[in-house]
Amino acid sequence: MKKPSINTLVAPLVRDLIDNADALRVDVTTGSLGETLVDCGVKAVGGLEAGRRLSEICLGGLGQVTFETTGTEDPWPFMVTVHTSQPVLACLGSQYAGWSLSVEDNGKKFNVLGSGPARAMGSSEKLFDELGYRDTAKTAALVIEADKAPPAALVKKIAEACKIAPDKLTILYAPTSSLAGTVQIAARCLEVALHKAHELHFPLDDIVDGIATVPVRPARPAFIEAMGRTNDAIIYAGRTQLYVTGEADAAKKLADELPSANSKDYGKPFAEIFAAVKGDFYQIDPMLFSPAKVTVTSLKTGESFHSGKIDDAVLQRSFA
Amino acid sequence: MKKPSINTLVAPLVRDLIDNADALRVDVTTGSLGETLVDCGVKAVGGLEAGRRLSEICLGGLGQVTFETTGTEDPWPFMVTVHTSQPVLACLGSQYAGWSLSVEDNGKKFNVLGSGPARAMGSSEKLFDELGYRDTAKTAALVIEADKAPPAALVKKIAEACKIAPDKLTILYAPTSSLAGTVQIAARCLEVALHKAHELHFPLDDIVDGIATVPVRPARPAFIEAMGRTNDAIIYAGRTQLYVTGEADAAKKLADELPSANSKDYGKPFAEIFAAVKGDFYQIDPMLFSPAKVTVTSLKTGESFHSGKIDDAVLQRSFA
Amino acid sequence: MKKPSINTLVAPLVRDLIDNADALRVDVTTGSLGETLVDCGVKAVGGLEAGRRLSEICLGGLGQVTFETTGTEDPWPFMVTVHTSQPVLACLGSQYAGWSLSVEDNGKKFNVLGSGPARAMGSSEKLFDELGYRDTAKTAALVIEADKAPPAALVKKIAEACKIAPDKLTILYAPTSSLAGTVQIAARCLEVALHKAHELHFPLDDIVDGIATVPVRPARPAFIEAMGRTNDAIIYAGRTQLYVTGEADAAKKLADELPSANSKDYGKPFAEIFAAVKGDFYQIDPMLFSPAKVTVTSLKTGESFHSGKIDDAVLQRSFA
Repeated sequence: MKKPSINTLVAPLVRDLIDNADALRVDVTTGSLGETLVDCGVKAVGGLEAGRRLSEICLGGLGQVTFETTGTEDPWPFMVTVHTSQPVLACLGSQYAGWSLSVEDNGKKFNVLGSGPARAMGSSEKLFDELGYRDTAKTAALVIEADKAPPAALVKKIAEACKIAPDKLTILYAPTSSLAGTVQIAARCLEVALHKAHELHFPLDDIVDGIATVPVRPARPAFIEAMGRTNDAIIYAGRTQLYVTGEADAAKKLADELPSANSKDYGKPFAEIFAAVKGDFYQIDPMLFSPAKVTVTSLKTGESFHSGKIDDAVLQRSFA
Repeated sequence: MKKPSINTLVAPLVRDLIDNADALRVDVTTGSLGETLVDCGVKAVGGLEAGRRLSEICLGGLGQVTFETTGTEDPWPFMVTVHTSQPVLACLGSQYAGWSLSVEDNGKKFNVLGSGPARAMGSSEKLFDELGYRDTAKTAALVIEADKAPPAALVKKIAEACKIAPDKLTILYAPTSSLAGTVQIAARCLEVALHKAHELHFPLDDIVDGIATVPVRPARPAFIEAMGRTNDAIIYAGRTQLYVTGEADAAKKLADELPSANSKDYGKPFAEIFAAVKGDFYQIDPMLFSPAKVTVTSLKTGESFHSGKIDDAVLQRSFA
Repeated sequence: MKKPSINTLVAPLVRDLIDNADALRVDVTTGSLGETLVDCGVKAVGGLEAGRRLSEICLGGLGQVTFETTGTEDPWPFMVTVHTSQPVLACLGSQYAGWSLSVEDNGKKFNVLGSGPARAMGSSEKLFDELGYRDTAKTAALVIEADKAPPAALVKKIAEACKIAPDKLTILYAPTSSLAGTVQIAARCLEVALHKAHELHFPLDDIVDGIATVPVRPARPAFIEAMGRTNDAIIYAGRTQLYVTGEADAAKKLADELPSANSKDYGKPFAEIFAAVKGDFYQIDPMLFSPAKVTVTSLKTGESFHSGKIDDAVLQRSFA
């Protein structure tokens, strides 16, 4: 079956966000090279709804992101849920922040990880060979987690890599600590499950549908604490269900191995883990990044395998 | 008040499904008579979202079908919820699989139950006399639960009954065991409540609004087990609320009688019940097909009558 | 940042409601002055979905209103949730029923409180000076809680105040006791929180995002009982989360003071409170009108302050 063009799919979503900029409190400007810049939470107020739309753009237009209410006894009233019938393409082919970009900006390095559908046009990540997917489209959209607009040198690099003129490129950005940022990171709950499944060498083509939910916990203004909380929401409270083809044994194995609790670093707020390794991200066990609670359903046998649990104790420490 | 044309209402929904075929992983082809065929889960991968859209088409464009998250302690993370302010027309006039169709296909019988808005154009079910509703429209859409495309002889029969050329007819199909099939059957939770209310001789015109929810439980690859599980999700875990006019006594009586637990066949997984009658569907008590838990609200007095309960014991056996 | 024109934002929502009048069972007529009248529950059946759309119109097109399912153990299966990233403008600048209108109609007074975006064009409430917002648009939409169509004299007054011809004005109405009315009042859960925050002198500009949820409880046919129940759903079961800038101390103070339980009149069904003051609305403590359970999140420190609780005892008395 033909795979859709994710940059073409998101074009109307980007257009709609821009058309409703005042209502959504995002700030739309034209950059020096003609690119469209959408500030979702730096100078702009942004908000949860801007973050929800940013998340659907990150997913390449292949997923639905919705807010939901928790049970009445839960101290945190709201959750964000992500669903896609194209989990591999939406999460790994688009949403995953895998495009490592770096330029000189006024004598300083500007390093950023790009996510969203433009990756499939311009990024040289090996992952795309595995996915067997490349996009070509008339326009491209890239999402970056940043506290300022990307410099012209970066815009030039991205547009050239995507083989489009800069005025066909839209870059959307929000900091980790903003409301929009909080939502767009929470909406990565399914993506981290897919990424870990990939790390565990589960065949990606066998994952045919997926859904995940995570509480909307408040971010912190400081970057490390903000990053800590958004990670904790997924690692200690995220839930996901994957539907897989292939052998039931493989489905069971995936369910057993997928939850974050299997990581040697599991058990304390992420900010503490990060401090313990003195901020060296690469010393953290990559198996930590995963939802807390997992159901994997084998479409071959109809069996479902459950694993993991919500960890209220760590959550209370993290979100105190 | 004028009743809407349900085939006209679904036309944009069908169009949108077709326009997004690649993203939704449904397979759209033109059949030998010019009809449009949409495979939502036979050769096509389909998915939960294709099933959600299929459900809204089944409801004649008069209902909203949404995915929701369960409470954190529930082993099954997701539900499907159906809501319509036209429950009688949406569920009985469109979604109910009441059009019994049968043709010869290469020397074998092809029997199928049609659901969706085309019924109101082409089916001779007496139910439509009771509903006082018939649709005429330029196009028609029919949904069938099947594991292959409908043969040309069936397409011809349907188009003639609907008094349209075959190229104005869209037939959408998915097997019971597919992801899309699982959702579209779960989305019948409100319809079975309406159907049973009709069997109980409750005046249909008095049912003015309705909402129902049911867990998304995995189907089984084998037809009987798949059918068993989808039925069990409604019978032992489905919930509904109906808003009715008329006397409060009648509302109370409906609430008392509606839940599945009133059936003599209640109490074990559907596949076991089916085996016990040696697969003779018509020996099963029709009163079994109903949600587990019911609220009926009398708009005349403001009273609400609650009845029934979720049956975790049977659910655990069915979904083990 | 430029504020959106809320009457322009709702125009497509009003158009869509009118285009789907038959499906939504609302009754659309042209009044004697050329105005568009949309009956959502007087002679029209209306329904929960009409109420949901009416609520989004009330919010000036700046909010999303959704139905959700409660936990399986809850006797009331459904809730309505409101979310907006423009809580002040959506709730106070549009949804709040603050436009006091009165005309002679056949020798009798017709008094009504107008809500919705037309207020920002035509009402002389001082609140708009505080909000620093006024709308000018080509069309206007006003929502009134009433059990009959507005008389021509009222239409004339509204159109003149809005400085538009009557044929550019749409008035939507539903009684408190109707299904649509029940939903549109429940959808005020966030608005009452905003209104009380304002009464408590919390700086409105500091409230940047908000979400609220309230059970859909059945109204009663009699006005006072209907009003009582819709108020009880918010006062004893409503939940909200507000995201605020400014000092964390102010956020904590707001959380402490906001819940309804702080009111001296808290503790019994609203209809009883209303009877105790012999129907003199202005003797009721205004601090009573607020959600039951509140979370206020300080964006400055990342702290969240929780206060209040769901009051099942009063709810059981009110909704028996």
